[in-house]
Amino acid sequence: MRCAICLAGSLALALSLGCAPAPTKDEPVVSVDPLPSWNDGASRQAITDFVNRVTDPASPDFVPEPERIAVFDNDGTLWAERPLYFQLIFAMDRVKAMAGEHPEWATQQPFQAVLENDLEALAASGEHGLLELVMATHAGMTTEEFKLVVEEWMATAKHPTTGRSFTEMVYQPMLELLDYLRASGFKTFIVSGGGIEFMRPWTEEIYGIPPEQVVGSSIKTTYEVRDGKPVVVRVPEINFIDDKAGKPVGIHSHIGRRPIAAFGNSDGDFQMIEWTTSGDGARLGVYIHHSDSEREWAYDRDSHIGRLDRGLDEAAERGWVIVSMKNDWETIYP
Amino acid sequence: MRCAICLAGSLALALSLGCAPAPTKDEPVVSVDPLPSWNDGASRQAITDFVNRVTDPASPDFVPEPERIAVFDNDGTLWAERPLYFQLIFAMDRVKAMAGEHPEWATQQPFQAVLENDLEALAASGEHGLLELVMATHAGMTTEEFKLVVEEWMATAKHPTTGRSFTEMVYQPMLELLDYLRASGFKTFIVSGGGIEFMRPWTEEIYGIPPEQVVGSSIKTTYEVRDGKPVVVRVPEINFIDDKAGKPVGIHSHIGRRPIAAFGNSDGDFQMIEWTTSGDGARLGVYIHHSDSEREWAYDRDSHIGRLDRGLDEAAERGWVIVSMKNDWETIYP
Repeated sequence: MRCAICLAGSLALALSLGCAPAPTKDEPVVSVDPLPSWNDGASRQAITDFVNRVTDPASPDFVPEPERIAVFDNDGTLWAERPLYFQLIFAMDRVKAMAGEHPEWATQQPFQAVLENDLEALAASGEHGLLELVMATHAGMTTEEFKLVVEEWMATAKHPTTGRSFTEMVYQPMLELLDYLRASGFKTFIVSGGGIEFMRPWTEEIYGIPPEQVVGSSIKTTYEVRDGKPVVVRVPEINFIDDKAGKPVGIHSHIGRRPIAAFGNSDGDFQMIEWTTSGDGARLGVYIHHSDSEREWAYDRDSHIGRLDRGLDEAAERGWVIVSMKNDWETIYP
Repeated sequence: MRCAICLAGSLALALSLGCAPAPTKDEPVVSVDPLPSWNDGASRQAITDFVNRVTDPASPDFVPEPERIAVFDNDGTLWAERPLYFQLIFAMDRVKAMAGEHPEWATQQPFQAVLENDLEALAASGEHGLLELVMATHAGMTTEEFKLVVEEWMATAKHPTTGRSFTEMVYQPMLELLDYLRASGFKTFIVSGGGIEFMRPWTEEIYGIPPEQVVGSSIKTTYEVRDGKPVVVRVPEINFIDDKAGKPVGIHSHIGRRPIAAFGNSDGDFQMIEWTTSGDGARLGVYIHHSDSEREWAYDRDSHIGRLDRGLDEAAERGWVIVSMKNDWETIYP
């Protein structure tokens, strides 16, 4: 009897670990579609073909598990970025909250634009200006204090047009894709122009991506012992901008090997996808194209935020996949 | 019959995943000692007690798996560092190989010391000088070229006194400890003052630590497209020194959460262990003390390399464990 009990216990354990018993030849394989929010079509096919090629040990394109690194941009790729980068909305809320201590901001851009709700002037300050704004409002506290500020904002703030929580404005098809890749032995990383510490407090819960697999822009930090208590302090000085040609540098610094799959949505992701897809063997480069003006937003070449111009021109010749949110995705948000 | 076959298959699978059936009360637990090279004693006991406390769901000190982060210094903690940091021996070999292209090195320290085999002068240039030497000799090539140089050196170079390969001068008890922690749900990271790109080519094979879990000192890199081929180029400029107060900064940057266990051997690891052990809940701080002049080397307070002075003074009051290589380790090398 012991044997049967142990076996049953092991079976339960095996199932809980995702190890279902193999079907016999006579029975059809009952497989659950890992990408139910992806419509049938060339984009979906390109993704599943790639995964099959690199995970099948019999395939000439087989890639051992440790080398299965997939990198994802965040803004506009895993979650929405309209009307503004969400981190920017967070930063604007912070600027307003902190303005009393900073009278000089009333006449200093890009702070003035924030206090006057002048989104045009804010957008005109460019991506570097936006990052500077973000960094300036995120410093002068310990890393643990900042984490609490982010967590509180995420728990309470709502998107200005949809009224959803920002963590509810992630893309359901991308959540499925992350799960599908991980179930296929991939390690998934975020490589975002956004602030690394703005993402880390919630990426594990929302995307299943732990803090140590998040790469992003950062301000400098220092280690200090204050009144006997060790702290890491955020200093108002930009450390690294993880955008454009910075993305392969960030990947190299944090991951230390070249990914085999990269997902982005803007020209800021061009070099990341270029670096990824120029390695040997099977590679996958994917652009998410914001083509759905009804369910999300439609923008590309002329957008201040998430501009996709060179990527649209060169994707075909480089063999990169362009996913149409309108046509390829049955669902947008969870 | 199908059921039994499936069960048997699941059992084999479960066993291969490390899920052995639980023994009944009547049978003794046949357990394999995970730390056979560790002698019985207070050090070993402190480590296994800590692991039991944080992994037992019924323990008040239980830590969920994703938070089980353990960080390890490399030089002097995972492998030897005498008579010189091994990366320095590598750099010296590089200096000699490259000296023809750099006539100015003949009268410029610390290069002159290398070319004249003047180890005293080299040691006197200090840790920062040593890192500068390392960085200077490691730049001016792509990251992939550098990786090949490291791999070739590792495959051929021998330690000057033992004649072993450098990757054979790792500590057997620490290899067991790494395995034991990982089997207990820990994620293991290297956090070293050594160059991150000098370690990454071999840490996965030797320690089971993949490149993305290696934190270290670095020079700057840039992304370029050369004749249509994307490359990441190593620039002769120090980017980050992952030593002393830099270690908590490196941990924060790469890992993004505070470890619960830290292992070092010198005052350069003090802040890493301090940062780790000052968090809430159960924490483990460990110093490896080089106390074995026969089987390894004996040094601490007066050593240029791997100086352990403040750490020895404060370990007891801070509750950190001091592992004596002489008394606590039955074996040194594999």
